[in-house]
Amino acid sequence: MPTLRRERGDTRSAEGGTWRALETGPVMSDAVAPAVVKEIPPKAVDLSAWYTAVCLKAELVSYSPVRGCIVLRPYGFGLWENLQKHLDASFKATGHENAYFPLFIPESLLMKEAEHVEGFSPEVAWVTRGGSEELTEPLAIRPTSEVIIGTMYAQWIESYRDLPILINQWANVVRWEKATRPFLRTMEFLWQEGHTAHASAHEAREETMQMLEVYRRFAEDVAAVPVYAGVKSESERFPGAVETFSIEALMPDGRALQSATSHDLGQNFAKAYDITFADADQRIKHVYTTSWGMSWRMLGGLIMTHGDDRGLRIPPKMAPLEVVFVPIVRSGDDRAVAVCRSAAEELTKAGMRVRVDTRDQQPGWKYSEWDLRGVPIRVDVGPRDVDAGTAVIVRRDRGKGESGQKTTVAVDVLARTIPGLLEEIQQSLYDQAKTFLESHTPRAGDRESFLAMCRDRAGMIDIAWCSRAVCEAAVKAETGATTRNLRPLATSDEATCVACGEPAKVRAYFAQSY
Amino acid sequence: MPTLRRERGDTRSAEGGTWRALETGPVMSDAVAPAVVKEIPPKAVDLSAWYTAVCLKAELVSYSPVRGCIVLRPYGFGLWENLQKHLDASFKATGHENAYFPLFIPESLLMKEAEHVEGFSPEVAWVTRGGSEELTEPLAIRPTSEVIIGTMYAQWIESYRDLPILINQWANVVRWEKATRPFLRTMEFLWQEGHTAHASAHEAREETMQMLEVYRRFAEDVAAVPVYAGVKSESERFPGAVETFSIEALMPDGRALQSATSHDLGQNFAKAYDITFADADQRIKHVYTTSWGMSWRMLGGLIMTHGDDRGLRIPPKMAPLEVVFVPIVRSGDDRAVAVCRSAAEELTKAGMRVRVDTRDQQPGWKYSEWDLRGVPIRVDVGPRDVDAGTAVIVRRDRGKGESGQKTTVAVDVLARTIPGLLEEIQQSLYDQAKTFLESHTPRAGDRESFLAMCRDRAGMIDIAWCSRAVCEAAVKAETGATTRNLRPLATSDEATCVACGEPAKVRAYFAQSY
Repeated sequence: MPTLRRERGDTRSAEGGTWRALETGPVMSDAVAPAVVKEIPPKAVDLSAWYTAVCLKAELVSYSPVRGCIVLRPYGFGLWENLQKHLDASFKATGHENAYFPLFIPESLLMKEAEHVEGFSPEVAWVTRGGSEELTEPLAIRPTSEVIIGTMYAQWIESYRDLPILINQWANVVRWEKATRPFLRTMEFLWQEGHTAHASAHEAREETMQMLEVYRRFAEDVAAVPVYAGVKSESERFPGAVETFSIEALMPDGRALQSATSHDLGQNFAKAYDITFADADQRIKHVYTTSWGMSWRMLGGLIMTHGDDRGLRIPPKMAPLEVVFVPIVRSGDDRAVAVCRSAAEELTKAGMRVRVDTRDQQPGWKYSEWDLRGVPIRVDVGPRDVDAGTAVIVRRDRGKGESGQKTTVAVDVLARTIPGLLEEIQQSLYDQAKTFLESHTPRAGDRESFLAMCRDRAGMIDIAWCSRAVCEAAVKAETGATTRNLRPLATSDEATCVACGEPAKVRAYFAQSY
Repeated sequence: MPTLRRERGDTRSAEGGTWRALETGPVMSDAVAPAVVKEIPPKAVDLSAWYTAVCLKAELVSYSPVRGCIVLRPYGFGLWENLQKHLDASFKATGHENAYFPLFIPESLLMKEAEHVEGFSPEVAWVTRGGSEELTEPLAIRPTSEVIIGTMYAQWIESYRDLPILINQWANVVRWEKATRPFLRTMEFLWQEGHTAHASAHEAREETMQMLEVYRRFAEDVAAVPVYAGVKSESERFPGAVETFSIEALMPDGRALQSATSHDLGQNFAKAYDITFADADQRIKHVYTTSWGMSWRMLGGLIMTHGDDRGLRIPPKMAPLEVVFVPIVRSGDDRAVAVCRSAAEELTKAGMRVRVDTRDQQPGWKYSEWDLRGVPIRVDVGPRDVDAGTAVIVRRDRGKGESGQKTTVAVDVLARTIPGLLEEIQQSLYDQAKTFLESHTPRAGDRESFLAMCRDRAGMIDIAWCSRAVCEAAVKAETGATTRNLRPLATSDEATCVACGEPAKVRAYFAQSY
């Protein structure tokens, strides 16, 4: 893995913000390095600047020479691989198979589903030339694949015996964007998109809900990001869907991050793309389809949720490296290296992702770097530890000097101790985030306090709501907040909409959002 | 997995060839199905027609509404996933990490390496419009990523400590093509591309050769496709490379299939994209780069190499399904289903990829389908087997009625028997292909017989060669054959080029190629 160092491209700032990379010297030397690592802006002061700095300096991403496109560097890709591993296993466990569909969608095909076109055409990149040939029909680069997959399903599906079709695709998609924020808003991004076809509305809805739950479990149990799952309001619905469901996380600046969506498409796409089947009763019917997706945006949510002023804090299940060993070599005494290598080998054999950092930088520099990179556990071994047969375990989830951050243990219990500790850290990061979410989910009781909370980004502002688009638009115009997702009213809830006074129909989380 | 059935799109023929899908009836019924499965043209009569039919009917791929683009269906994607799994593990074992780079390359950037531009620009798809905006600079869709990755390496690399950089990317790429042949020639295809940067020419060459060997091992040990590894002639070299190495397989029609390439790029890209480093001696130097790639074309080679008149024969290590159980239900006696399920569970637990086919088609239809799909081992269990506690193992690598094709064994030894049998089948498929390759590698001794062999596609025609481009061009003009790859002359070899009589410099395999 490349070492932490100055990036020539770092001075580019996201969204034209105020922060610029502060490193200007030559290749990082031992002497200046720790100072440089500290040059991440405090998270609480300017989340945006902190976020960009961490993404670049922890070498998750680089900006590229292509406007709107980032490079996912090996350490960032390590996060993506863990997301893929966990989600893909969940997809397969629920009966889905992977496939791959073309990147291109002919213009005429894209135009068939009216709402879908209207929703996506402002964001589409068009290929108009191939080699030296001007195309007679431009090709859209997929912003999502309902159209091309629906077209294939229309060819593949003949009878009820062919249903359900349960397919997922891991792919790159392109949506024309001006702004760039690593993971959160990029022109090209990596995602997965599931596309299924069913014989009945009921089954399609069940699939939609099942995948929403797969996403919720991934977000909470793997990424340690607590979310609210619910249905989207009409205005926030996917273009062409009957209902859209989402999981929504809350970022430290009080903005919500939509982290995955699951769409019940009803028969809209089936009718637009003529996807029919002969049912058991011999009648030709349109299928019911669903689609659902999670992108690398989820990684942005993970970074913002868990990071601190020292950098990333990666939940163990998502960590490219779970444990890093730092042997401390003093006055030519390098016995610690052998101790670390032997312990690391034992952990690797037990299935953990481990590295021994034998580079010739100072320990202080390494501590800062691994803090920045958010490795859940660091193990330090110095000459005195070698004499005593001990090692110092340092937990990244605890603050510097916090009780339990450092523990000295016998080297030979490391392999027994660390798996449990990783679980504890996973849980602790989730608990911290859950506490934040719960303490930032205020129930607004009246219009004035509700609007003030929306303006102040008080969190996921929870109200009884009328579910009228006009009401949502008014709140948005006044405060910038929109509904994130909705759930049924309880009998104990207010009878009238907190925002407008009309009869309440649902409970809604309002928030400004990414 | 979707069942075998008529594809409405099947009637489209590849390369304007003569074969058309013969199915014209309604959804396949039990009665007509076995006949339909047999409607694959004989492999020996028309490989091209056989190939297209197998790819479509085994549901590896479908044609798409986008010219030149195919859909990789779940069963085909299963092959790709196994390729990925094996290659990715080899890459990681040799110290490489995955990353992801942008799909787009700005025109001005692509134009910097002259040979590279000349080689690729006729094949580039161009994005000229984003949303409603006409771009001031068109964006190329990557035909390969040397340019964008080299640009990033120029930013990332500062000193010798940053070297080597060993990165691989799994990605889609686009090369503008008129013809479509599933896997072999498509406008968009999936591949991996490794890109590395090194401090010395020696190290870059070592990397190039290491990855060539990784590819050779994958082709032979996993895909069971024997290959010749060697260096390409100048005319066949990658645009911008110092040397290109390849592995070349021989297809049953006597044409060679280039199955992977590994390029030593020297300092060509480093100079064009200004990739420099401060060496230990403080001097600023250009790095040495390599790139290497294998695409889904390898799957086309696997299909053509192993298939027979009944369809695919997939080597077990690449098989999406290694074992399929067909329980035979007669007169309501369905005890075989439980026997199969229990045995299948045991195999699954032991790590094998297994399915029980409980669909309500006739056994004969299922046999034909699993033959077509090339599953290495089928296990049949009928009512009499249940009484006797036995099962019939049917090997796909042996012909119908061939000795050892079917063996009756006790059900309770299946889990012990099958792993060894899978290894045997893997080896047997390799051996068959190896015998074919060796018996089709004639050494031509004089010009006339050499040219006749080239014209007749006699195989990998092995000659002492002068290594002159003008000689190669003359052979190509006369016969269509080119050099596939080269290796050093031995002292016992002819002193003069068999093709032209000039002094011999190397040994070369000549063949017509895909």
